[in-house]
Amino acid sequence: MDDLAELGQQLRVDAVRAAAAAGSGHPTSSMSAADLMAVLLARYLRYDFDTTQHPGNDHLIFSKGHASPLLYAMLVAADAISDEELLTFREAESRLEGHPTPQLPGVDVATGSLGQGLPIGTGLALAGRRLDEIDYRVWVLCGDSELAEGSMWEAFEHAGHAGLDNLIAVVDVNRLGQRGPTRHGWDTAAYARRIGAFGWHTVEIDGHDIDEIDRAYAEALATAGRPTAILARTRKGRGVESVEDQEGKHGKPLPDTDEAVAELGGRRYARVRVADPLPAPERMPLDTTSLKLSTYEPGTEVATRTAFGETLAALGDARSDVVVLDGEVSDSTRTRYFAQAHPDRFFQCYIAEQQLVAAAVGMQVRGWIPYVSTFAAFLSRAHDFVRMAAVSGADLRVNGSHAGVSIGPDGPSQMGLEDLAAYRALWRSTVLYPCDANQTAHLTAALADLSGISYLRTTRGDTPVLYSPEETFPIGGSKVLRSSPDDQVTIVAAGITVFEALTAADRLADAGIAARVIDLYSVKPVDTATLHQAAADTGRIVTVEDHWPQGGLGDAVLDAFVGAVEPPLFAKLGVLALPGSATPAEQLWHAGIDADAVADAATALAAQ
Amino acid sequence: MDDLAELGQQLRVDAVRAAAAAGSGHPTSSMSAADLMAVLLARYLRYDFDTTQHPGNDHLIFSKGHASPLLYAMLVAADAISDEELLTFREAESRLEGHPTPQLPGVDVATGSLGQGLPIGTGLALAGRRLDEIDYRVWVLCGDSELAEGSMWEAFEHAGHAGLDNLIAVVDVNRLGQRGPTRHGWDTAAYARRIGAFGWHTVEIDGHDIDEIDRAYAEALATAGRPTAILARTRKGRGVESVEDQEGKHGKPLPDTDEAVAELGGRRYARVRVADPLPAPERMPLDTTSLKLSTYEPGTEVATRTAFGETLAALGDARSDVVVLDGEVSDSTRTRYFAQAHPDRFFQCYIAEQQLVAAAVGMQVRGWIPYVSTFAAFLSRAHDFVRMAAVSGADLRVNGSHAGVSIGPDGPSQMGLEDLAAYRALWRSTVLYPCDANQTAHLTAALADLSGISYLRTTRGDTPVLYSPEETFPIGGSKVLRSSPDDQVTIVAAGITVFEALTAADRLADAGIAARVIDLYSVKPVDTATLHQAAADTGRIVTVEDHWPQGGLGDAVLDAFVGAVEPPLFAKLGVLALPGSATPAEQLWHAGIDADAVADAATALAAQ
Repeated sequence: MDDLAELGQQLRVDAVRAAAAAGSGHPTSSMSAADLMAVLLARYLRYDFDTTQHPGNDHLIFSKGHASPLLYAMLVAADAISDEELLTFREAESRLEGHPTPQLPGVDVATGSLGQGLPIGTGLALAGRRLDEIDYRVWVLCGDSELAEGSMWEAFEHAGHAGLDNLIAVVDVNRLGQRGPTRHGWDTAAYARRIGAFGWHTVEIDGHDIDEIDRAYAEALATAGRPTAILARTRKGRGVESVEDQEGKHGKPLPDTDEAVAELGGRRYARVRVADPLPAPERMPLDTTSLKLSTYEPGTEVATRTAFGETLAALGDARSDVVVLDGEVSDSTRTRYFAQAHPDRFFQCYIAEQQLVAAAVGMQVRGWIPYVSTFAAFLSRAHDFVRMAAVSGADLRVNGSHAGVSIGPDGPSQMGLEDLAAYRALWRSTVLYPCDANQTAHLTAALADLSGISYLRTTRGDTPVLYSPEETFPIGGSKVLRSSPDDQVTIVAAGITVFEALTAADRLADAGIAARVIDLYSVKPVDTATLHQAAADTGRIVTVEDHWPQGGLGDAVLDAFVGAVEPPLFAKLGVLALPGSATPAEQLWHAGIDADAVADAATALAAQ
Repeated sequence: MDDLAELGQQLRVDAVRAAAAAGSGHPTSSMSAADLMAVLLARYLRYDFDTTQHPGNDHLIFSKGHASPLLYAMLVAADAISDEELLTFREAESRLEGHPTPQLPGVDVATGSLGQGLPIGTGLALAGRRLDEIDYRVWVLCGDSELAEGSMWEAFEHAGHAGLDNLIAVVDVNRLGQRGPTRHGWDTAAYARRIGAFGWHTVEIDGHDIDEIDRAYAEALATAGRPTAILARTRKGRGVESVEDQEGKHGKPLPDTDEAVAELGGRRYARVRVADPLPAPERMPLDTTSLKLSTYEPGTEVATRTAFGETLAALGDARSDVVVLDGEVSDSTRTRYFAQAHPDRFFQCYIAEQQLVAAAVGMQVRGWIPYVSTFAAFLSRAHDFVRMAAVSGADLRVNGSHAGVSIGPDGPSQMGLEDLAAYRALWRSTVLYPCDANQTAHLTAALADLSGISYLRTTRGDTPVLYSPEETFPIGGSKVLRSSPDDQVTIVAAGITVFEALTAADRLADAGIAARVIDLYSVKPVDTATLHQAAADTGRIVTVEDHWPQGGLGDAVLDAFVGAVEPPLFAKLGVLALPGSATPAEQLWHAGIDADAVADAATALAAQ
């Protein structure tokens, strides 16, 4: 075991050197976990760094992403990166960012927002058991501080109940957080009681005793039917007296690098031959047949949430890689249609929206095509996970149903009124808001081939089917629903307000005002060309949305005229007061976004 | 005990009648908990419905807010509302919304987004023990489905560790969620193991046995040093055979109201004399002295996060009602200055952002002035709690530090780039983004008297002190930093980009272009008058922000010109690519928001 202890010291030395080169970073948080990772790398991890997409590769997630210097030191030891690259830590253009991102071999997802690695690992472990059916293992290095995050307990519950014995959480209990001691210090029994109560096998060890570490991993592998958590008592900054187990040493390079390296026994140059992945079948060939989209008869009334659910089921028929995840609202969101048709690819995450999104992030790592669905309002519960998924470059489809005041009597707690703002302000996101069933069907299917984070907003109530099933709806497009050479004003709407806009246009026509109506179903990206044409033709734009006036459709349209030499006159209608309970029609009136409000705004604008 | 059983039936009947009148709602979820609430109301709750602000009142939170018909039936039984009002359930203008809001006597906070009531109750219980020092009790009715939410476990951990024996969670284990069985069904032992592991006393009972319920409450009150969870096996729709313990009966009126009422034994008209609150001292007189704001010397460099922390400490000296809550990052956010000066009013919530916000919401119920602080990025973890706090009409001050790419090498996981969008799109919110230390001091202090949700964005790095300590900074104002009659273009910035804007203006001046510079520290509301004047004078506006281009400063400025007859030419600069690690200066360059980018955009605009 001496070589493993030596490897641990090497990882410490290299972590210290990386942080010294960067002038910042978290060497002490790396040093506590170095022995744990040394044993894992040399004796348990199965990974082909030359074939990072190998289906049999294990997965290693640094849930405590700030221990990135340790991860990068491991990559050096595995010969996956050079020592020269190690010293580019935290430099511009370097792959070795302050917190890990998937630019690097062996990194599946970005971490650094604590409490996310274990939920994502749970998603990967679910993929291994229920989708891939490959015996790869999922190892997650956790911090002790992050055990305060509720999302960790969503993961303990989900993984424990699912009996994911391919998941091993390694908790680095170094007792010190950013600003002082954690709640439980070195009381690993406190953690073991809690985690054990959630159905996990737990092992408490000295995280600097190579033998104990080795036995703990072996015990984890020998444990069938439930996941294992290894609770390792460690010392932050282990091996360098000036920082070891001391407060105030978080997140900064060691005071004297040369001295520290000397104290750690100097540099070492060991290279580890990491075990090969399990032989695994190539990814099962994607089973595709031509997609038979659900179609809806124009003139009938169908809720877009229903079309979404029915299309998902059809998509599941056509593609064997589509999976759907629910937050215990599948009756309402209509993902139950998919659940009924494809129970093997449906994942019930119960009311745990963070785990819901995280599971999907884990599954897309393995190439699955996840659709996540819950009420738009409750997606705000998981927004940090979506934010980090964007940083990971994850391909994730998110549906928020029951958007807007138009849900009616359930009241504001159930109304998504901030979702468009939230999903627009994400890196590389797509935001779609269909108004009718056929449009929803096309857009739902289109998401499957979209990269990045895509968001589809659906409506609770039945709405008229406007479009024929043959119509197409490109991302970034729009539909001009009313148009004449005499148009004096343009109304831009999406989703439920499209119908208010059409009614308003009728009333305006009666009053002698010709109004153009645009269905801007693609809120990001927007159809700038059509909007500019409308501005050129009418000089006046009214936007109307079932959303707070900030950050949504109206702001997207305003943004489309940034740089325009002659921006149009503008009126922006959004929800103008806190809703209570009321009928859908009363809600639209109260919010100032019904047909009358639109007609009034358009009339006032036309008179300018 | 027969009268209590009768009262339980009355609550069921009235819940059924309310939902019938509304044509929607959750009667079956109410019926399961009716006996639990009957015993609570008649024998344990201490509450003066005529004096809802009585400091000795107990607090009752329906964490399962969809059981609102039960709550409203209780208010009828307590004579706090009339039977006539009960039947306005879910009507427009009624106080009896689909989910409870604080319009009603006895309702402290809005619920309906599951998993929030217990964390908020934990905040109230903390206030009772550590701030008010009054022995009111906090009763929280929880659903079993919501135990899947991580936020519940943040609360179990916080309350258990704090030993809050004034907190009692009553869990209505009716085994059925919205779309079918919960994970653990009627296995109350599974819940008891988990909750017990977090240091709570647990009691498992038959939730329809009045004696068992009564004994459980008595046992909870007799339990010292730790909170109690009562795990009650119940039957959803209890008492009406056509719905009792059946799937598919969630969230809808009973099929036949008259038949159901008859089956429940018909209407009853009992009125309960709820016990008086504990005699409690009037709220301790607010101890105020004149505020001695921290001041900073113009020309020196001080981080706005530092000014925030120092001002909080000074504010704590001046006002005895200010409390500060941290998510284990007080070293970085600088709330440690307050912690050192006022440890009795500082609450360490560890890395549990949902509990962090919820605790503050609970404390402001009792009139305390909470400031919540963590990294801006990690506030996205708690956004649903902030959203619901807005629905509650809560007064909450939130600080997000380490905003933007300018933090430098830590990378995107730590950068708040969506916070302005998130906080603008909230009901009745205020969004502030100071650039210098004196401005930060003034704004931090101003928040104390602000109602609604207010957000203050702070910056990691040191920035020059621009303003004298005497300057004032009204909410909704701005500062014109450069101005001349010859201005050809206006640059609007806030926070870190103010300095880029000033440098850009210098470069533009060298190139013969006079640029106005506006520090728009109040992002919501914005200073429309000053912006309009700038547009009238210069006709051209460049906005620049350290935030995604969507939903932030640029959109706020665009919005200020909605309705304007001659909107200005516009250029909008925001973070244009996913950042990695780099120095702050490199980050600003990479994001396209540094002085050169501003000068280029202004030059191009001026040439139009």
